Amino acid sequence: MTKIEPRTLKGFRDYLPETMIPRERLIETARRVYRSYGFAPIDTPALEYLDVLTGKGSDETDKQLYRFQDHGDRWVGLRFDLTVPLARFAAQYANTLGLPFKRYHVATVWRGENTQRGRYREFVQCDFDTIGTLALTADVETALVINDLFQALGFSDFKIRLNNRQVLSGLLDVLGLVERTVPVLRSLDKLGKIGPAKVAEELETFAGASATQAKQVVALADLQGANDKILTELEAICGSSELAQTGITRLRDLLVAARAAGVPEERLQLDPSIARGLDYYTGVIFETFLDRLPTIGSVCSGGRYDNLAALFTNQQLPGIGASLGLDRLLAAMEELGMVDKVATPCPVLLTQFDAKFLPQYLKLAAELRAAGIGVELYPDAKKLGQQLKYADKRGFRVALVAGEDEFAAGTVQVKNLASGETVQAKGAKGASEVVAAIGGILKGIS
Amino acid sequence: MTKIEPRTLKGFRDYLPETMIPRERLIETARRVYRSYGFAPIDTPALEYLDVLTGKGSDETDKQLYRFQDHGDRWVGLRFDLTVPLARFAAQYANTLGLPFKRYHVATVWRGENTQRGRYREFVQCDFDTIGTLALTADVETALVINDLFQALGFSDFKIRLNNRQVLSGLLDVLGLVERTVPVLRSLDKLGKIGPAKVAEELETFAGASATQAKQVVALADLQGANDKILTELEAICGSSELAQTGITRLRDLLVAARAAGVPEERLQLDPSIARGLDYYTGVIFETFLDRLPTIGSVCSGGRYDNLAALFTNQQLPGIGASLGLDRLLAAMEELGMVDKVATPCPVLLTQFDAKFLPQYLKLAAELRAAGIGVELYPDAKKLGQQLKYADKRGFRVALVAGEDEFAAGTVQVKNLASGETVQAKGAKGASEVVAAIGGILKGIS
Repeated sequence: MTKIEPRTLKGFRDYLPETMIPRERLIETARRVYRSYGFAPIDTPALEYLDVLTGKGSDETDKQLYRFQDHGDRWVGLRFDLTVPLARFAAQYANTLGLPFKRYHVATVWRGENTQRGRYREFVQCDFDTIGTLALTADVETALVINDLFQALGFSDFKIRLNNRQVLSGLLDVLGLVERTVPVLRSLDKLGKIGPAKVAEELETFAGASATQAKQVVALADLQGANDKILTELEAICGSSELAQTGITRLRDLLVAARAAGVPEERLQLDPSIARGLDYYTGVIFETFLDRLPTIGSVCSGGRYDNLAALFTNQQLPGIGASLGLDRLLAAMEELGMVDKVATPCPVLLTQFDAKFLPQYLKLAAELRAAGIGVELYPDAKKLGQQLKYADKRGFRVALVAGEDEFAAGTVQVKNLASGETVQAKGAKGASEVVAAIGGILKGIS
Repeated sequence: MTKIEPRTLKGFRDYLPETMIPRERLIETARRVYRSYGFAPIDTPALEYLDVLTGKGSDETDKQLYRFQDHGDRWVGLRFDLTVPLARFAAQYANTLGLPFKRYHVATVWRGENTQRGRYREFVQCDFDTIGTLALTADVETALVINDLFQALGFSDFKIRLNNRQVLSGLLDVLGLVERTVPVLRSLDKLGKIGPAKVAEELETFAGASATQAKQVVALADLQGANDKILTELEAICGSSELAQTGITRLRDLLVAARAAGVPEERLQLDPSIARGLDYYTGVIFETFLDRLPTIGSVCSGGRYDNLAALFTNQQLPGIGASLGLDRLLAAMEELGMVDKVATPCPVLLTQFDAKFLPQYLKLAAELRAAGIGVELYPDAKKLGQQLKYADKRGFRVALVAGEDEFAAGTVQVKNLASGETVQAKGAKGASEVVAAIGGILKGIS
């Protein structure tokens, strides 16, 4: 029979255990942190009516959308982000759910992107949002969630950079450039790449700013230094705008509150250059950078918006949220050696020395699991060397060996696979000594 | 502006927090149990080349497949189960991964089914499989995983029914009916519904069996009673077939081993009527029934197969696995009152009595989270009654109240939302008394 070639589509990935284990662990950590703040999980369909997905779409997302006609000839599409489904969801259920509404959503999205840019066509997003409140509390908590999450993942050296859209908007208002906001944001986004002089040039060429106006915009975006210094300078540049002053006060209050909640002072850094392209944001905006890998870009970004669901409802739904960059973060953690490269989710391999003892092996494994230790029982009584090779390849930490002699003596050999060292532990009557021996080895590793 | 109507496609569901919280909890429990046996997570793309998906397909799955041409004019489809992707995956990576290979896969699948049968077009499957071994160990462990999983979910009253395809195959061999296996299985599947007499009739009409043959097949499938009794009777009916005898011995060994591993004797029940339609299975087969809701059908089913990936590779890949019926199980748990209907993942709502204390509220919330207690901080200092109504609607267990007086006295009011009772706890210097008071309330509930 002709075989079908086993293969995946371009831009799509299989996740093998070695890759999937840290992914699941990261997502579980994110869920745990989100939940601890009262964010509740939701899910929405992967397929939506096409008009729901294209309603807001830019030309780019429209082009990338996977779309087709279903069995009932309806035009449908695969979601390309979790924001459009959230907007649809919020419009549909805001009255049922009540406000404020805090949700997280971890789900797959699809974009028919050009894979030559190293992008995937299928990836997981990991968002959290607070909808229906303008309160400072929600702004601060967004920063706190990011802080707790990266700490829970084992990072101590990261920075949350923040800005407030109202500050720039206020300046543009004072300068009479409000209508040029989009090209201004587009140019400002390049500050890190092309520098202040070139950005000023672009502001004149593409945003119709005068030389003086361009200078003032760049001066604002290019402010650097301690938070207090930046706040003072922002007030000097654009404090005459009520809007900008509101934004500056909000930033100051956020910093005070975050400090009270235990965020180290140096972790939150004002950065007036952050613009986050989309004109969707209207208040505080966040980006998160790893000190040891700044060039990888922001690994968690978001901000406040005035109106989430204008396409679907007249109800004004302000909110604030952020999205964890899962793929980027996993790549970073791998590069930083923070990810164990193992292909097994449990630390212990119980070998089979003699198949006739299967019931005893199963009993021992059950006792260890009851003590909270993950144990894989090798299925066959193959040569011990072969089983140990398997243990090694998979990344097990401990191998247990027991045969005729051990069962007669009521013992188990507990082998530390890193050091090669083996100890004898009593196993026959209750597995407590085996548990202790395994615990000792695992403690030494982590 | 005209609004787009917020709506979902027929056969698709939004999961609101109340529904999603127990779903996530169930899936996490399944993952934890799978991992404790060494099953490792994998994931595969939602979209596959169409030929990969249709290779094995029956007419029915082919008809239900969501298929379309992608941006590169490739014919692609959305996976309709996790077995075909596993076969493709195993063929592609068996040599990289090495065997045996134990994986679990929790992922969404799509089928354009007739929704009038109460089926959804998008649902989550939750499978675990052991590939590359014929060992009894893997058979037993499949039963143990099911047992551990349902125990971990809080069930004590359930039955794992098992059979072995080899027993029936052996009988059909002896009777000269092997070539009629498919229609025989189809008729036997109806035993519970139409009874032995009608099945015997069908066997004669549709499977070409003689009256005597039909009687023997039905006699085998209709055996009931204690496991030992059934084993003895099976041997009497078809022990002359070597194949059937192999199957009978395997069942006996499985029961002995499962008992040694701690599975209560009454939980595993031989049931020679289980056929599991698909001719894919070749060895032991499992179904799982809830004692208090038997009519809901099997909530976890699976079995052993000889060759997983024949479509993709010449490598013979035997295996065994099972699939948790997530939707069915959640419906059952809800009906049995095993699911808390709450819309919040955390038990405590910290109210805001006075916005000027925001930093203090944030600090208290952070201390409680550090002690492992999930706390949502209400974002605004609205009227207390409104905040408590919110707490009630969401299903919080405890509300904390602190204002001018409490902060002056260094106390917090801890309100049990079920009883309405309120106690004062010291909160200002370390939250330990608050933690203890909350702990007391939560302990009283669960």
